[in-house]
This record gives sequence, C-alpha cells and structure tokens, in this order.
Amino acid sequence: MNREYPTSLGASDADSITLLGHDLAQDLMGKVGFGELALWMVTLKRPTPSQVRVFEAVLVALADHGFTPTAIAARLTYLSAPDSLQGAMAAGLLGGGSRYLGVTEDAGQFLASVLAAADTMPTDDVGFDELALTAVRSAREAKKFVPGLGHPVHKVRDPRTPVLIAIAEEEGLRGPHLRLFEAIGRVHPQVLGRTLPLNGAGTCGAVLADLGLPLGLLRGFALLARAAGLLGQIAEEQRTPIASDIYMAVDRNAAYVNPPSE
Amino acid sequence: MNREYPTSLGASDADSITLLGHDLAQDLMGKVGFGELALWMVTLKRPTPSQVRVFEAVLVALADHGFTPTAIAARLTYLSAPDSLQGAMAAGLLGGGSRYLGVTEDAGQFLASVLAAADTMPTDDVGFDELALTAVRSAREAKKFVPGLGHPVHKVRDPRTPVLIAIAEEEGLRGPHLRLFEAIGRVHPQVLGRTLPLNGAGTCGAVLADLGLPLGLLRGFALLARAAGLLGQIAEEQRTPIASDIYMAVDRNAAYVNPPSE
Amino acid sequence: MNREYPTSLGASDADSITLLGHDLAQDLMGKVGFGELALWMVTLKRPTPSQVRVFEAVLVALADHGFTPTAIAARLTYLSAPDSLQGAMAAGLLGGGSRYLGVTEDAGQFLASVLAAADTMPTDDVGFDELALTAVRSAREAKKFVPGLGHPVHKVRDPRTPVLIAIAEEEGLRGPHLRLFEAIGRVHPQVLGRTLPLNGAGTCGAVLADLGLPLGLLRGFALLARAAGLLGQIAEEQRTPIASDIYMAVDRNAAYVNPPSE
Amino acid sequence: MNREYPTSLGASDADSITLLGHDLAQDLMGKVGFGELALWMVTLKRPTPSQVRVFEAVLVALADHGFTPTAIAARLTYLSAPDSLQGAMAAGLLGGGSRYLGVTEDAGQFLASVLAAADTMPTDDVGFDELALTAVRSAREAKKFVPGLGHPVHKVRDPRTPVLIAIAEEEGLRGPHLRLFEAIGRVHPQVLGRTLPLNGAGTCGAVLADLGLPLGLLRGFALLARAAGLLGQIAEEQRTPIASDIYMAVDRNAAYVNPPSE
Repeated sequence: MNREYPTSLGASDADSITLLGHDLAQDLMGKVGFGELALWMVTLKRPTPSQVRVFEAVLVALADHGFTPTAIAARLTYLSAPDSLQGAMAAGLLGGGSRYLGVTEDAGQFLASVLAAADTMPTDDVGFDELALTAVRSAREAKKFVPGLGHPVHKVRDPRTPVLIAIAEEEGLRGPHLRLFEAIGRVHPQVLGRTLPLNGAGTCGAVLADLGLPLGLLRGFALLARAAGLLGQIAEEQRTPIASDIYMAVDRNAAYVNPPSE
Repeated sequence: MNREYPTSLGASDADSITLLGHDLAQDLMGKVGFGELALWMVTLKRPTPSQVRVFEAVLVALADHGFTPTAIAARLTYLSAPDSLQGAMAAGLLGGGSRYLGVTEDAGQFLASVLAAADTMPTDDVGFDELALTAVRSAREAKKFVPGLGHPVHKVRDPRTPVLIAIAEEEGLRGPHLRLFEAIGRVHPQVLGRTLPLNGAGTCGAVLADLGLPLGLLRGFALLARAAGLLGQIAEEQRTPIASDIYMAVDRNAAYVNPPSE
Repeated sequence: MNREYPTSLGASDADSITLLGHDLAQDLMGKVGFGELALWMVTLKRPTPSQVRVFEAVLVALADHGFTPTAIAARLTYLSAPDSLQGAMAAGLLGGGSRYLGVTEDAGQFLASVLAAADTMPTDDVGFDELALTAVRSAREAKKFVPGLGHPVHKVRDPRTPVLIAIAEEEGLRGPHLRLFEAIGRVHPQVLGRTLPLNGAGTCGAVLADLGLPLGLLRGFALLARAAGLLGQIAEEQRTPIASDIYMAVDRNAAYVNPPSE
Repeated sequence: MNREYPTSLGASDADSITLLGHDLAQDLMGKVGFGELALWMVTLKRPTPSQVRVFEAVLVALADHGFTPTAIAARLTYLSAPDSLQGAMAAGLLGGGSRYLGVTEDAGQFLASVLAAADTMPTDDVGFDELALTAVRSAREAKKFVPGLGHPVHKVRDPRTPVLIAIAEEEGLRGPHLRLFEAIGRVHPQVLGRTLPLNGAGTCGAVLADLGLPLGLLRGFALLARAAGLLGQIAEEQRTPIASDIYMAVDRNAAYVNPPSE
C-alpha cells in the first residue's frame, strides 16, 4: 500500500509549478498581491479586492509595535547568531503566544462562541447590545477577562480601532463579529463599572473572524504580520545595532543574590 | 547616564501609534499594502508601485513549494504541539537555512560581489557576458558552485525565471544584478560544458538586489514569503491532517540496527 | 535611577565565574554532575545523591523515543539548514507541547491540585485510594482525561512505570504525588470500566513533583531530556541520513486536490 | 517497495522500550547517568567513567553564564508566551550560533584540521609548540582569528581553562587536541605580539574533540549544556521576574529617529 498525501497548495513537475490549482508563473506572479495570496492559501478561495483591503489593513495594524519583547528577543538572537537570520526571526515569532499576540485569536474565538450560542443572530445595534451585555456579564461571573478590552498604553482609545471599523464598513465587511465587539465597547461599562477601550488586536480578531478565517488560525495572521515587522527590526539592527547595548545594560546591572544557604 | 535606543519603526503613546514616521492608523492602515509596508520597513523609504509589484512577485514566487522539508517539519510540530501555532511556524522557518532557502541570498551576494569587483559597470549584454564569463570561470577554478544555477526538479527551465525577468523589465527595474544573472545563464555552458537553468530562487535574489535591499537580509524575504506559505500549510493540516500519517509511515518502518557491540 | 536585575545563577568578573553562589571552576566543574547541576539551578538547593539518582532516571526515561514527530522535525530541519544545528534542535524542542511531552507536566499539575484540595494528606494506600477515586470521578464528570493514564503503544503496561516507582522507593523519595498516581492506577477501572496503564511520562511528572520541582516547569525537564535525545538523533542523521528519504516519500506521494472552483 | 528507516536509538513495542540496543527500563534507568546517556547516544559506544567525568565537566562549564543575550531572549519570550515553555527554551537556544556558543565547535574544528594536516603527530610539548606556531602564523597570515583565544571579560585568564586541563589529565584524557590548544597558549604571543588567555569555550572544544565526538556536532553539546542553564533562567524568571523590567527599560528609552524624508 502506498500512502498518499493530499494537498491543494504547491506542487511542481519538470516544467511547471502549481499553486492553489493555478500556474504559479503564468497566473499568479505579478498578478496577485502577497497579502492576497496569503489569504487565498488559507481559505482556498480567491479573495475579493474588498477582502484583501481589509485583510491587509489588519496585517499593517499588527506588523510592528516597536520595542516589544519579541522584537528585543529577535535582536538579541541576531546579535548572538548573526549567521542564522532564520533563528532570529523564529525567536521573535516564538513570543507570539498567549500574552501579547494572543489577543487577536482570543477575541475572535470569544466573539464566535457568543454568536454561536445566540438563539438568533441580531440584526441591529439593539440586538447586538443585548447579546454583548449577556456575554460581558457571563465573563464577569466566571471571573474571566473579555478579550480585546483594555490596553496598557492606549488607556482611553486605541487609534487603530475606529479606522479598522471604518475600513470594514467601506468594504461592506463589517460583519457580526465586529458588530458584537463594538457592542461590547458600548455596554461593558454598565457591567464592569469603568470604561475600557476596544484594543486594536481584538478588533483585528473580530475583523479576521468576519472574513471567515479559521478561528484556530487567527494568531497565525498576527504572526505573519509580525514576520514582516521582525524583518524591519533586524534590518534596523544591521544599520543601527542596539542589542549589544541592551545586553550590557542588563548584564552590567546584575545584582547577585546568594542562594539560600544549604 | 540613561541609555537611549534609537528606532525609526514603531512607537506608541497614549493616543497614537507611529510607524516609519507616519501615523499608523491615519496614514498607513487601509492605504498601504502589506508587501509595500514590509519593503518600506526594511528600506525606510516608501517604495514605488513598480517596486512593490516586483517585490510582491518575488514573495509570491517563494511562498510555497508544497511538501518541502520545512512544510513537513511545521506540520509535524503542529501535530505535537497544536496549542502553540507560533512554534509550528518557527519550526518551519528554521529550515530556511543554507540548503533550501539560502540560494536567494547566496545569488544576490554573489552577483553583487562580481559587480563590485568590476572595473566598470557593463552597459550592454556583451559587457555583461564578459563579466559573467570571468565570474563563472573563477567560481569553477575555486571549485565553487555558481549560486542560482540548476534545480533538482526543473532541470531544463524554471518557469518562474522568465516571468520574473519580464515583470522586472515591465516595471523598469531590470537592473545590473539581474542582467548579470541572465548573462550567466547565457555563458555558463561554455565553461561548465553543460546547460543548467537559472533557478527561480536565484532570480529572486538578483531581483531583490536590484531593488537595493540589504544583501545580508535577502534570505529574510524568502522567510517572510515562506511564513505565508506555512500558514497555508498549517491551515491545510487543520482541514486535512497528514502529519500523523507521515509520523506513522516513518515510525512503523523503523529498522532497528544494533549499535556496534562494546 | 539604575535598574538592577537580581540573579543567583551565573555571573563573571575578570578572574572568576560564580554559579549558584559557588566558584564554577573550583567548586563545581569535575565535582558536580550535569544532571545534578540542572536540578540545582532550578531549585537553588544542592540536591542529595538520592534526588539526583531519581532525577536522572526521569531524564533517561524521557530522552529518546525513536522516530517521534519531534525527532523527524529536527532531522528535516537539519537537512534544510545543516549550517544551523541550533535551529534543528530548537525545531525538535518546539514539538514539546501539549500533545506529546505535555503529559509530564499535566500529570504533575493534576496530582498536585488533587493533593492541595484534600482535607488531610493520606497516610496509607487506603487513604490514597479514596482520594484517587474522588479525583477520577470528578475528572470523568467534567469529561476530562486523567493525565498519565493510557498509552498508544504500551496498552497494558508501560515498562518505565514500575522501574521509576522502584527507584523512588529505593531512594526514599516515593512521595504523595507518586502514591496518588499509583492509587489512580488501582482505582480507575471501577470508574472508567476499563484498565489503562499508568504511562511513563505521567509517572515522571509525579516523581518530579515529589522532588519539589516547580509545577509550571515540569515540561521543561522533558525538554531537557529531549535535548539530549535530539542531539543523538542529529548525530545519527549525520552518520546515516534519512531525512531526505522522508521528504521524498512525502513529496513524491503528494496527491493534488484542486481547490473548490470559485 | 517499502522504505525503511534505520536507527540505533529508541524503539518501542507493546511491552518494552529499547534504547541503544538496551532495555531502557531494566538496563538504563537508574543505572546510567544523564550525561552518560547523552554521550552514549551520540557515539553509540558506552562511555567510560573517565569520559563521563570529563564530559560532564564540560557541560557544567558551559551551562550558564548569567545574563547572556540568549538568557535574556529566553526570558523575554517567556514573558510574551508563558503558555509555551518550549518556545522560550527554543528562543534561547537559537542564540547558540557563531558568535557566542560557536567557539567550542570552531576551536575543535580548527585543532582537528591542524592535527590532520600535520605530517606526524607530536609526542611532546616541543612538537606541539612547533605545530602550534605554524598554525598561529598561518591563521595570522590569512587574517583569521585563532578560535578559543581571548575573552571579553577574562582578559588575563579564564578560570575554567586550567581546571578542565587538570580534569582531563587526571582522567587520562588529555589528548592531542587539548595539548595543541595548550601549545597555542604558549606560543601565540611571539606571533601576535600580545598574550591572550585560552578561553573556556575553546578549551571545551579541545576536550570534546579529544573525546572523539563528531566535530560537526560540538556546538550541540554547548546547546545541551545551555538547555539546562535556560531552564534555570526560566525558573528564576518565574520566581523573580525581570523580563518585564528589561522590556520597559528598552521601550521607555526608545529615541525616535524620523526616517530620511522621501
């Protein structure tokens, strides 16, 4: 018996390369954008220009946030192993876990689960507000955070949020996940007793979920965006190195604490 | 003394996010494509539409080649640690080293070093052919391969190569690195005694070098392209898992060889 | 204000290297074993010879299990990027997530949480059986698996389990986590209606928890053990390469499935 | 045709686990140390107690050097993705490249190549000095560094070096690689015009090469040692977190530099 391994992505023979059932060289290169292709490879369905615009807006929103722990980790790894650029990029992506990059996926999953549990899909803001109120109350009772609420720096308003909503609206892609997220933004103060901003990463999760992307892969788009950002960080490290200074600032300020005596 | 860490990439304050000296939300999101941003973050200079088109054609060319060792490694890692998508993507990128993804950077570096050593920059194909002939002869004498020549599957012609050249030409970006690479394609048979195709990865390296990208970062663009491809591979693994079958096909066909007796 | 970064691990000055408050060269090298040091660096307390023996038995138990997905991923990464041994080892470790290597930590955490919730610590097998019965019933009701029960290959008995118990007993380190785990082995059939083996990875978790190691770090010891195994796998790949054959077996058996038409 | 994949490492059937041709549970666990097993898995030959002692002294020497870039990268990654311990360890190992951990392998390779090129193997210090003198002169002429010479902190003497030599001597394992390295320590001042210390990492490379370990794998032992150190670093980060402070110290001291105007 020969095993076979099915795929609809890339394949090659002597004369041609196929990707997504198309001739890579003739049909895709120069005709399809990179973001468009990334979206297509995940959904297996050619995205519309509106979907591409919304999707790329999300990637642009998530690409780089300056000296994040992941950017610093990538730079330090590049300092240690400059011969292995892939290692520096991988090290940077490895910080894309629950705490920083995870919000995008957590928000998408949370919104999808609330929508899935709703008896009927709301059709107006009043309906979304009701659903949001129940969801925020349940989260509160379960002592859980609502993913996508609050931001350590943008304490009042995350500037990315209204822009993403506007772009989704312009492109006819402001769907139920995003509308529910907006509703959470309106109703949460009456439950939590204080007003938190809808953060950009959470909004990205809502938008990606409205694009129909697999919920278990939303973090992956944040990682793709971040891959571009890390490339920028490493390029800057090549031009204007700071990793060695960071290392020195830590190492030279080590305060030795003797372990408890035995 | 307070250290300072210079950057021109991302930065945030309570109300705004700056990236590349621009307001991320107002000036970039929805207005700048993802490939455009990736290029911009590396060069710090806003690319022209022609540069973006050529750049994205390269990323599309490199995004996915089916069941490469890196795609398989990413799928196996996802099988083992499905809770850590970032780990699966990182594992896939870590195969982006010298043997498979390295050609892009090696070709760019090789072409740039030949051009840098030339007394004058050739202005026509005759001039590039002469330079190429010298370069191929030197490589041969040093028993080194010319990076970008030959391909294990596309033994006669890599279908990406003429398309990339045509796109670069259309956009007015067929520069000296690519012209030298084409010249190598013309002259190498008289030195090596056989005709090899110019492979797509090498052509990508030539094109990226003509875009003025840092030579020490060319591999990074192959990695960025591959990040999108890996996301596609993992999405497919979620839909149609094969990693467990691959694992079984290896494990169940292990042939135990006793170590040499001691 | 100068930040300071406290540590009790390594530090250096011009003439000496300190580790764990000891002179590395004079007090540790040649006098302390590697497993002993690994344990010490985590606990900050010099382990006893009994603790070291039990700890090293765990590491030996977990070091290599042949052609696991992680071993295959490491070999494929080494094939792609042979210049970057660290990348191959990292790729292998990245599979050390929830599904394969996670059992050790999950079992330790589960046992510790059951013990923490117990009114009084049992003092004999009868007491541990009662506690185990309650715990297995609760897990069943919550439709959760009991971590450490069952094994895909060792369906009746995992050969590592009795040996680890015997070593812990010999060294006077058969503590409450392990005794509770053994009790689970005795009582689960009356709840689950079938008899599953206590697997080796779960037993390792119980033993490591009895050693007083941080529960949130138990997976790390499986990773350390696996780092040695991966080194063995890569050494074997250098001597007797198989990664290229694995790649070919997958790639040449790809079955192209056209994406759904658009 | 069925492919087969040969191995001499781990294998399992329903009742037993084999490792290195031995019964893992009966013959290895509790009887073989972890360092011993690591060495054995690479060489396929059971090491002697002397080999184990020397090998473990090397691992102890390399395990942790405090706040290195790799340790900081691991801590920052753990901060970002605390749910993925394997990611933090992998990120730490990825810094084990050419610059920091590479010296061990570079020194071993350098010494081996000098010995391989020698007409006859020296039998006394005079002979090794002659060989060393030629090697240092050749390196100098080729404008290459001699790997293992010099240290950024231990400018006069690396405290690990004499201890490693003494342990190798005690165990009858002070072989030609180490003797040549010592000779380099004696003769290099007359070529370079200044006296540099033989650093510990280089000495480790010499010692590992004398143990007969594969030269292309020497970096791997530094990585294994470092895996234990990283576990210690992450345990300390769990107890006494500093990664967030490091991140803040960098992020809050970012100095924004506008990109060149377009």
